Amino acid sequence: MSAELENASAQSRVQRVRNFLRQNNLRAWIAWRPNELLMLSGYFPFWGASFLVYFDDAEPILFLPQIEPRDHIPAGLRVQDYPWGDLKCADPYSVLVSMVRDELAKAGAKPEQVGMNPGAARTSLPIQAAEQIPIPEHFSGNLSAIAAGTSASCLSAFASLYVRKTAEEINAIRLANSVATVGLRAFFENLQPGVSEPEVAAAVESAIYRQIGHDGIFHSRGWAMVQSGPNSAQAGRFNRSTGRHLESGDLVLIELATCVNGYWSDLTRTAAVGSIKDDVVEILALATDAQRAAVDGVRPGVSAGQIDALARDKIAAKGLASCFPHHTGHHVGFRYHDPGFLIQPGEPSVLEPGMIVTIEPGVYVPERGCGARIEDNVLVTDSGHESLSAVAA
Amino acid sequence: MSAELENASAQSRVQRVRNFLRQNNLRAWIAWRPNELLMLSGYFPFWGASFLVYFDDAEPILFLPQIEPRDHIPAGLRVQDYPWGDLKCADPYSVLVSMVRDELAKAGAKPEQVGMNPGAARTSLPIQAAEQIPIPEHFSGNLSAIAAGTSASCLSAFASLYVRKTAEEINAIRLANSVATVGLRAFFENLQPGVSEPEVAAAVESAIYRQIGHDGIFHSRGWAMVQSGPNSAQAGRFNRSTGRHLESGDLVLIELATCVNGYWSDLTRTAAVGSIKDDVVEILALATDAQRAAVDGVRPGVSAGQIDALARDKIAAKGLASCFPHHTGHHVGFRYHDPGFLIQPGEPSVLEPGMIVTIEPGVYVPERGCGARIEDNVLVTDSGHESLSAVAA
Repeated sequence: MSAELENASAQSRVQRVRNFLRQNNLRAWIAWRPNELLMLSGYFPFWGASFLVYFDDAEPILFLPQIEPRDHIPAGLRVQDYPWGDLKCADPYSVLVSMVRDELAKAGAKPEQVGMNPGAARTSLPIQAAEQIPIPEHFSGNLSAIAAGTSASCLSAFASLYVRKTAEEINAIRLANSVATVGLRAFFENLQPGVSEPEVAAAVESAIYRQIGHDGIFHSRGWAMVQSGPNSAQAGRFNRSTGRHLESGDLVLIELATCVNGYWSDLTRTAAVGSIKDDVVEILALATDAQRAAVDGVRPGVSAGQIDALARDKIAAKGLASCFPHHTGHHVGFRYHDPGFLIQPGEPSVLEPGMIVTIEPGVYVPERGCGARIEDNVLVTDSGHESLSAVAA
Repeated sequence: MSAELENASAQSRVQRVRNFLRQNNLRAWIAWRPNELLMLSGYFPFWGASFLVYFDDAEPILFLPQIEPRDHIPAGLRVQDYPWGDLKCADPYSVLVSMVRDELAKAGAKPEQVGMNPGAARTSLPIQAAEQIPIPEHFSGNLSAIAAGTSASCLSAFASLYVRKTAEEINAIRLANSVATVGLRAFFENLQPGVSEPEVAAAVESAIYRQIGHDGIFHSRGWAMVQSGPNSAQAGRFNRSTGRHLESGDLVLIELATCVNGYWSDLTRTAAVGSIKDDVVEILALATDAQRAAVDGVRPGVSAGQIDALARDKIAAKGLASCFPHHTGHHVGFRYHDPGFLIQPGEPSVLEPGMIVTIEPGVYVPERGCGARIEDNVLVTDSGHESLSAVAA
């Protein structure tokens, strides 16, 4: 590892964001999407209408809806209210824009020195019920006038802020994985002939939701999709629980997204119900072997394409290359799928310490009525890797 | 009710959308957001990357990711694949844009005759794990070049397509409410001292998920937020389950969003655990009375402001006006919160048959350590109303 990398690895999030601003000749960055707020500041919004102004040389300002909960705001943020959620305020967005404009003016940051993700004004993603907050058109125009410093190269540098996690962030993602593990235990416990796919999935999600209140967890939600028997053969295209009931001889696959305090885990397990045929045993063993080979290869300096090949070659060696139609992995942590390179064929990007990636090869064989995928979240360490999600079946 | 209204009430969704296009001098409309697809065509996408081209005089075309499930596509849509999810295709969005452009050209629809919601290119909302699909910037520009016929008045007319539901849509929303009712039964069954808020909420969500496979349900998901005792007093600002355990003397409030096959229900119940003090009884009774008064007032021709006043005046009469800080209701069905007017003070918009609105006044009193809200989804009928969500406590 180079000295520069080592240095970057030890940097705090504040240092990284400030370096990003300076290197892009920016005085400030404005952000709105929950995952951007989380990555920049560790703050996970409730309503999805919080607004962050991040400066190169001063404490970030967090503008909160007046109705936002206040009990999990990290230290180091200056908080201001704005009247989002006030029945008497017809246009909280205009109030917000003027507050932001004032603060930028006070800091002497001109519009061309202020950056934003262009989607900032257009979308938000609230926690509740997967509903987007409708944002008035004028908000977008007003923000563009405030933040005119964004170029394509700057956006690409911004996206790269996601890929290497700090020690504190790794711990938060470790916690999301340990909560997910609680869910996976419920998965294995519920694998019985006669139980339906939604019954298994609901038990997993329930176990995850019930973790709220333990270990500093103020938010915990799982999305479990369970596919059994012939349905597991579709798991390379989509993951969805149907009304099917488990039968002896099935492979059962669970795709599990878990969000804990804003940080994500993305796991998959495949298990057998009762006794399974030899040609099904072979598929499960192959997926397991391919996954293990790729995980074992994870260390700093290896390219994503090399990791992909470790899994893909195993599957191809059995003549089943076409049964593995997707990538081997992606970055994970601030989102279910973080921005950044994929672990896919020919990808030249190189693994670095502090990256957390999924390793999730799969083998899906409709002709044998089965599919299998194993997925772990793997931290690249200074000397190799650590799986954040080791679970015994 | 005027003859025009009566006519509109009987119209099919296809007729309404085509009328909208003609009245706005449009030949076609392009859509991408899941709730727009659902409203326009009854189709609920899985990945959130399906794309609809709706014509004034021909069958709509639905462009599907090649990996999209195919088993719940409504009749009357022409389906084409595009290579979203294909590991070998670096830019499926460019392929999509060219396919859409070709179809518009074949139909002779010029860019100024094609409309879209400007957010179309920017956001999508997938079903899985509440994660937005990242959409490349060039997609937005390419779509704007294809669809240049959108004005502010046309967008407002588009939004109005959401507010009156057809008979078929009412049945779909009725089903979402009956599934939600299964969840509410689990709520009431789990109200015991010592049980935690997340335990109650998880039982509700679990009951809802388990409905998949029954009654033509291919997708069913609940978001339950439970607030007990003093936490219920915050329910006018936000809804969130904490680690608190229920105690005798608590009011317990559940906010429940339910999505079934894409259609939504939005319900709230408040119930007591054990015996509650008189000043808490009074709050629950007041919320219940206010809600009943507003529901009883729902009929065609009444303004939203009048309905709001029916609830708000009851609460004000007890000197608690400031304890009801939010609106009385909103449209619901294609989304958790449909676009359209709010049921709020002074709102002049008038209820019409086929509208479905929430009625959800609340009273939140931190000084008494409690809050209460009751929420139903109420259909405006030709002569009055029908509650879609009547549940005995």
